[in-house]
Amino acid sequence: MAEFSKVAVIGGGVIGGGWVARFLLNGLDVTLYDPDDTALSKVNRIIANAERAYDDLLDVDRPKIGVLNLTSDIREAVENSDFIQENVPENFELKKKILAEIDQHAPENTLICSSTSGLLPTELQADLKHPERFLVGHPFNPVYLLPLVEICGGDLTSEDKKNAAADFYRDIGMKPLILKKEIDAFIADRLLEAYWREALWLVKDGIATVEEIDDAIRYGAGLRWAMMGTFQVYRIAGGDAGMRHFLSQFGPSLKWPWTKLMDVPELDDGLIGRITEQSDEQAGDLSIQELEKIRDNGLVRILKSLQRIDWGAGETLSDYEAKLKSNAPKSQLDYSRPLLLHRTKIKSDWIDYNGHMTEHRYLQVFGETTDKLLDIIGMTDSYVKSGFSIYTLETHIRHLQEGKRGEEIYVTTHLLGLDSKRFRVLHVITREQDSSVLATAEQMLMSVNITENKACEFGEVLSENLTEIWDYHQKLPIPDFAGAGIKSLQTS
Amino acid sequence: MAEFSKVAVIGGGVIGGGWVARFLLNGLDVTLYDPDDTALSKVNRIIANAERAYDDLLDVDRPKIGVLNLTSDIREAVENSDFIQENVPENFELKKKILAEIDQHAPENTLICSSTSGLLPTELQADLKHPERFLVGHPFNPVYLLPLVEICGGDLTSEDKKNAAADFYRDIGMKPLILKKEIDAFIADRLLEAYWREALWLVKDGIATVEEIDDAIRYGAGLRWAMMGTFQVYRIAGGDAGMRHFLSQFGPSLKWPWTKLMDVPELDDGLIGRITEQSDEQAGDLSIQELEKIRDNGLVRILKSLQRIDWGAGETLSDYEAKLKSNAPKSQLDYSRPLLLHRTKIKSDWIDYNGHMTEHRYLQVFGETTDKLLDIIGMTDSYVKSGFSIYTLETHIRHLQEGKRGEEIYVTTHLLGLDSKRFRVLHVITREQDSSVLATAEQMLMSVNITENKACEFGEVLSENLTEIWDYHQKLPIPDFAGAGIKSLQTS
Repeated sequence: MAEFSKVAVIGGGVIGGGWVARFLLNGLDVTLYDPDDTALSKVNRIIANAERAYDDLLDVDRPKIGVLNLTSDIREAVENSDFIQENVPENFELKKKILAEIDQHAPENTLICSSTSGLLPTELQADLKHPERFLVGHPFNPVYLLPLVEICGGDLTSEDKKNAAADFYRDIGMKPLILKKEIDAFIADRLLEAYWREALWLVKDGIATVEEIDDAIRYGAGLRWAMMGTFQVYRIAGGDAGMRHFLSQFGPSLKWPWTKLMDVPELDDGLIGRITEQSDEQAGDLSIQELEKIRDNGLVRILKSLQRIDWGAGETLSDYEAKLKSNAPKSQLDYSRPLLLHRTKIKSDWIDYNGHMTEHRYLQVFGETTDKLLDIIGMTDSYVKSGFSIYTLETHIRHLQEGKRGEEIYVTTHLLGLDSKRFRVLHVITREQDSSVLATAEQMLMSVNITENKACEFGEVLSENLTEIWDYHQKLPIPDFAGAGIKSLQTS
Repeated sequence: MAEFSKVAVIGGGVIGGGWVARFLLNGLDVTLYDPDDTALSKVNRIIANAERAYDDLLDVDRPKIGVLNLTSDIREAVENSDFIQENVPENFELKKKILAEIDQHAPENTLICSSTSGLLPTELQADLKHPERFLVGHPFNPVYLLPLVEICGGDLTSEDKKNAAADFYRDIGMKPLILKKEIDAFIADRLLEAYWREALWLVKDGIATVEEIDDAIRYGAGLRWAMMGTFQVYRIAGGDAGMRHFLSQFGPSLKWPWTKLMDVPELDDGLIGRITEQSDEQAGDLSIQELEKIRDNGLVRILKSLQRIDWGAGETLSDYEAKLKSNAPKSQLDYSRPLLLHRTKIKSDWIDYNGHMTEHRYLQVFGETTDKLLDIIGMTDSYVKSGFSIYTLETHIRHLQEGKRGEEIYVTTHLLGLDSKRFRVLHVITREQDSSVLATAEQMLMSVNITENKACEFGEVLSENLTEIWDYHQKLPIPDFAGAGIKSLQTS
């Protein structure tokens, strides 16, 4: 795919290993230079992590994974390469020495990129024979997942080489950010460094523990930073009054001791004007209202993502939902009619390109309804842990109308049949607003002995509860469509 | 639910409005004090945003929304309240004046919480008659979505009141962080302030634009901050060598000009020891490998979340997938057998409490297969934009085996029937490893005129392409189970 196909990676630590994984998973063969015997096993662990992550991340086929060769000889690593990524420790003399070796052995057109977090490319390239092909390509850990790579050239770096590196990084799924000016620590790490220095003060002064400091970010501003930087966030907070107005309120607080790092620029009209202008450009056509919606849509999805892995702000959300659930009034189920088991609203994420609730989300709602039924008949966690469960054998869905975002729906459940190992149900999704049916699902479910992976009789409690419902539901009329298959077409 | 039920909010700006929304959506009635005539319309916009977000966020029923009353009289707002949240502008004299009024009119046990971003509670409470019930409850925008609230008491604040506030905030879905020591700007805003001051330097010095600075965070470190703070991130980056070893490498760089904010603490043995110890405690039982997995699982989900809203790092992911797709070798479809349309791996997110692929994810995979078929027969975006589409009428799924995480699966599609408006297909999901069938789905699909919302004939291209497949597939044997319904049970 990419312009470069023979990649060498110099140094196989956390960053170098992350690069190796990203390159391999993009189908590129990699020669890794690392004198350390344990490098390969460490890098293999990173590759395994990356493969696992890519399996979950990508909805398209990946190219066949590249081949990794390890060498303890720099010459061997670089002499046939056309792209080199250097990742030795952040020590100026060491970097200079290794880069000189690379420069000596690599073909003269081969691109040499350093992963340094902050050393200046002009200084690193000063003694190279071919300095024009040297630049910084600074990634973030884990390199195989985070898209950002900062590209910074030195005085002698050619523009073409910077663009070639950017194209290559883009081809392997990254977001290159080409710096206009060379500066120690580039952009991101300057921000991180300021943050870090303040964090060290907080620990040193005994204000907070490292856990409290981390929590102060990951439950708040950190959730926003995954989608918007501080300038965009402040633009939104400023609202319709505008960025200029918002910024002018900051003037005084920059003199306040709100950090120990007090050497700050004057937020004068010139700086306010520049930020305002750049912020307008950044926002483009998006109004404050639109930015608010985007921010909220993103935050909702991020919170739900964290909930799925039971972590941080996602745990807070789960605790909150549990509390809401326990506070909700318990409604008594009426067994003499189909059971009203589930209510929800159609969510933004459920909408397809037709603007309607997408088909598998119907089954999700039917599945949630089945879960509530299982709950009611007594299928507890401990029942499942004891080696028994209930599996769905068959589902027949009929779509009658299209659901749209925000519509309130409810699901009723009619027990159509029961024997000692199976039950058959009919779920019906009805739209609250006009009481019209959106979809129905007939399902056959079976009691399973998980260990033996075969059908078995329902446990005693489940059997009793199902029978109690069945006593009522067997008297209900069965709709015509139940039990029918999908009909053949009179083919043309 | 909560101990407090009569809530007053003082000041209806972005923060006050966010509080109003959170309180109302938790079923609490709110009296809002704001002298500004336009406050109500601004607050209503925030409430609408919040309702929309909660519809998507919560999978459980919310309590009935509370009632909002607006008043321009502080006394009226607070005299019957048991909980007050103050949000007037960040001006010490103004806050003191308003707090004095609140203190005078509110019942003496009523909790008074200030949303100040950094003013000291000891100074704010100094002249109150009942200072023990005053504290800071500092939230983050948008208040209705971000869980963090920093609780900071002054010298005269009672511990009981701090705990009561924490309990209340927790009840309404928040993550209270009680500060052990009072400090200007508390914890989070100190970190944000250091970051902000550095960001201002970068703009002032012409190093980067506000957009570049924001991008340098949201495509990199910002994605991590949604789940882990910097200490935890560094712990992982340090790997098995440990936090102490990792930190000792930082010593020198604190003397480097990696930020303009150079007034930094000495990272001596004492500070390294303290951080190491606290970091061990924070990590608890989680090994570096486990933390890496959690981090990657979170990052994958966050990236996919952003992809769904087509924003930031999610756009980068979409561009990357498009590139991979266009680079993938095109395989010629063999029409003489069921079409091999789709391949994927079973993703972590698809696994249910039984450890198996959950049922609606089967339909998702079947739906993706249908989408690929529609793609092949020529249902383009412009076809849909011109007012035509194809809807699923019915689906009959049969589950034969359980899919497990990471298993490779493929789907083949047999066209079972075709007329001028409908077609019927049989999709089969097969596990790559042992060529055994996991599930089948029979589907009936129909051509639809979207504007008139009724069946119509297929467009010419679609019709030709379907007919071409049908010419081959009508010769294929039809499996016995096709067309069958779900059978009745011999009931017990």
